[in-house]
Amino acid sequence: MANQEDKFKKVIAHAKEYGYIFGSSEIYDGLSAVYDYGQNGAELKKNIREYWWKSMVFMHQNIVGLDASIFMHPTTWKASGHVDAFTDPLIDNKDSKKRYRADVLIEDYAEKLNIKAQKEIAKAKKRFGDAFDEAQFAATNPRVVKYLSEREEVLKRMGASLEKEDLNDVKALIEELGIADPDTGSKNWTDVRQFNLMFGTKLGASADTATDLYLRPETAQGIFVNFLNVQKTGRMKIPFGIAQTGKAFRNEIVARQFIFRMREFEQMEMQFFVKPGDEMKWYDYWKETRLNWHLSLGLGEENYRFHDHDKLAHYANAAADIEFNFPFGFKELEGIHSRTDFDLKAHEEFSGRKLQFFDPELKESYTPYVVETSVGLDRMFLAVFSTALQDETLEDGSTRVVLKLPAVVAPVKAAVLPLVKKDGLPEIAQQIIDELKWNFNVVYDEKDAIGRRYRRQDANGTPLCITVDHDTLTDQTVTIRDRDTMEQKRVAIKDLKTLISERVDMEYWLK
Amino acid sequence: MANQEDKFKKVIAHAKEYGYIFGSSEIYDGLSAVYDYGQNGAELKKNIREYWWKSMVFMHQNIVGLDASIFMHPTTWKASGHVDAFTDPLIDNKDSKKRYRADVLIEDYAEKLNIKAQKEIAKAKKRFGDAFDEAQFAATNPRVVKYLSEREEVLKRMGASLEKEDLNDVKALIEELGIADPDTGSKNWTDVRQFNLMFGTKLGASADTATDLYLRPETAQGIFVNFLNVQKTGRMKIPFGIAQTGKAFRNEIVARQFIFRMREFEQMEMQFFVKPGDEMKWYDYWKETRLNWHLSLGLGEENYRFHDHDKLAHYANAAADIEFNFPFGFKELEGIHSRTDFDLKAHEEFSGRKLQFFDPELKESYTPYVVETSVGLDRMFLAVFSTALQDETLEDGSTRVVLKLPAVVAPVKAAVLPLVKKDGLPEIAQQIIDELKWNFNVVYDEKDAIGRRYRRQDANGTPLCITVDHDTLTDQTVTIRDRDTMEQKRVAIKDLKTLISERVDMEYWLK
Repeated sequence: MANQEDKFKKVIAHAKEYGYIFGSSEIYDGLSAVYDYGQNGAELKKNIREYWWKSMVFMHQNIVGLDASIFMHPTTWKASGHVDAFTDPLIDNKDSKKRYRADVLIEDYAEKLNIKAQKEIAKAKKRFGDAFDEAQFAATNPRVVKYLSEREEVLKRMGASLEKEDLNDVKALIEELGIADPDTGSKNWTDVRQFNLMFGTKLGASADTATDLYLRPETAQGIFVNFLNVQKTGRMKIPFGIAQTGKAFRNEIVARQFIFRMREFEQMEMQFFVKPGDEMKWYDYWKETRLNWHLSLGLGEENYRFHDHDKLAHYANAAADIEFNFPFGFKELEGIHSRTDFDLKAHEEFSGRKLQFFDPELKESYTPYVVETSVGLDRMFLAVFSTALQDETLEDGSTRVVLKLPAVVAPVKAAVLPLVKKDGLPEIAQQIIDELKWNFNVVYDEKDAIGRRYRRQDANGTPLCITVDHDTLTDQTVTIRDRDTMEQKRVAIKDLKTLISERVDMEYWLK
Repeated sequence: MANQEDKFKKVIAHAKEYGYIFGSSEIYDGLSAVYDYGQNGAELKKNIREYWWKSMVFMHQNIVGLDASIFMHPTTWKASGHVDAFTDPLIDNKDSKKRYRADVLIEDYAEKLNIKAQKEIAKAKKRFGDAFDEAQFAATNPRVVKYLSEREEVLKRMGASLEKEDLNDVKALIEELGIADPDTGSKNWTDVRQFNLMFGTKLGASADTATDLYLRPETAQGIFVNFLNVQKTGRMKIPFGIAQTGKAFRNEIVARQFIFRMREFEQMEMQFFVKPGDEMKWYDYWKETRLNWHLSLGLGEENYRFHDHDKLAHYANAAADIEFNFPFGFKELEGIHSRTDFDLKAHEEFSGRKLQFFDPELKESYTPYVVETSVGLDRMFLAVFSTALQDETLEDGSTRVVLKLPAVVAPVKAAVLPLVKKDGLPEIAQQIIDELKWNFNVVYDEKDAIGRRYRRQDANGTPLCITVDHDTLTDQTVTIRDRDTMEQKRVAIKDLKTLISERVDMEYWLK
């Protein structure tokens, strides 16, 4: 636990130090749960987006793209259920005027019980040493049993109350448990109320004529309302998919864990339209296909697992998450949902337009079923970045910080380094950059000793360093050094483009 | 004029028919001045964005990227002047309850005078034939002179009133001219008031603790507040630039002309930080460099012109637009502004942080001056798309609709077409796609006669068609047909990748 927290802090510090992620509006002391991507972060994010886009749109002849606006007609969100049901249960403290998620207050209380139990177990473990049977102790020690069973009971009651929307009982639970405002200790609570997570704004001037708009809380609905436009103008036949990347916004009361849960975030979603009855086949197909996409990045198979949902959202008949081993444990990275015909039917109802597909083989029209794949781009960024950041001890006992980003998404593909700042070496380095820059993002660095420059590029995540030295002047070769193995090879300048391609091109990663 | 309108209508219809642009939320009867990009539009927009990004970031060793969030700390917009001064003068009609931009009502009135004058001129031209001296007639005909001088007077008075913020006089002018609500004819007007164009929203729950936020009205401020973060972590030395693409939002009361002026739009901006005193040199450099970038797309030199600003914004000491010949005339496509140190100084003042650069050669710190290049991605899209759309009469007298998009940004680079749907030709076509798809967005089409498929790809903007026929079975060659020349060549399958690269790769367009 302590190690995880340390690791996470290192990730956040490194992200800032190397121009990957800055807090938003830092000079104004920041904006909570909003972040900016710096010069390296902007490229990494772009490259992950592009790796997703190409693997979905270019690789599948029956998937096309879309770029719908953030603003949508407000009825969209009535049809989708967001106006009525996209809510969090909130409670205010009357003394401190602070607002909290009621469920999070209770979950934090439950977590404290868990921590108490774990402490008891750790103490006993220390006392008994190797012979200690943890499972048996946890099942029999009265204090541990009491903590864990109370924890379970609390969470169960809260779940039941929320499910039947009994907000009075949620408040009663908070009072019975004696939960106090974490900031002030006051137990003077208001009632619990549902709070909608959509950001609202007004289109047009602020008079009577203004339209209440929402910032989209998900990109999916932009695909559903354009289903017929794309199907008809693109002459698409079922099964086919529409892919989209773009910003979405959620007014989270408790937004935590760096870029994992932000108020402004980016989704990469694909809705795949299928014949009713075929959805489970495609659901399985997309679970496998999407997992393989993640595995292609080489972050380690052990860092992924499926979490099949027992409890399904109102629109789904099957759902699974691909969870990733983040610095704070396994959490959702991507969702694969069989959404049935819920969305298209709802938009048919609210718009009065038929949203059906005429199947030329069956010679009949039907409302397609939908299988969705939805991955958070910022979460992908965090998964890639946090796993890549490593402290390595080298053979000679020295250490290095290295950011082993998958080369296909690394912001800078190669650094070109003249061994010294004279004898025409900088000029040759520039010539090499001028050749490579059409295909790769490359940088030039001439400052400090070569070893220090290698370390800087290691920490920056640059997969390759190309060093120009005095031999280059006579034989047109350079040294190419690999970030991960630190191996150096002598190669001809004219072969550089191919060598870099083989290390960074999507083809070599996705095939 | 009539021709221009016809042309513009054709552009809009074609954009929808071929999956480039749909009205937002069309099934709900749309959302005014908001649009969605369809399957082809999403790719075209992405490609234009990438062409800009690479030409700025990859081609310049001293320009790096950034991806700042849409939400920013609200003080940002106080410092930038947007809270106080980013306004339009609005007026309401008390009877119809409709709201209008006061300046646009007056401009429309002035335009009607101009139309009257043009009609007189056209009539006279018809009467006098070839001998007609238009300039002389316009200068001497009493009616024409009256119309045009009244027009000039009206615009001059409005400009003066707005400049000294005398909104009462703007209202007086509307009443004196007898301007009526265009919808209802009512002349029962409210006073004129300034209305801020920023969209507001609330961060956090809607209680006292919520923070008033704005959706950014421009991307530039995200760069300014991150100036030091990028400069320090990227070890950048003056002069250097920070480039960014992203959404911005303006609550335009009158948003017109399709995607030219939208309430949600995307900017591609670069802020170039220079030593005070050097700004005019860099201003000239960026004017030339940006114009060359536009010219590289091959839309015709005659379609661009500079418009140097006489009247400068409060933050600028020089400014020019690159105007483009849109279907509705020459309008701003890109702005190049010498913004001085206005923004950095304002953020210094409001944040209390020094935003300076320590010049290692001068051994002193200074607040850099800034030269900005700012182009609307959606406007670029409209410029490219509307110019590309052409009705061509061919040598045999037949006509074709062809979308001559610059191949470097065309959504689909090549269509692979089996001549017939049998004899193994579809399978070979698929094999070709499987080879090409790693590098290019390619599509397959087997429906209809080959001539019709060519026409479809012409209208779709696909630069190349690759046809697989029976000879392919024996000699591994295909026919490659060029959209623009309609020339067909026989080439080996193994050479396709190189041939397509030479037609579509950035390298061959930008060099």
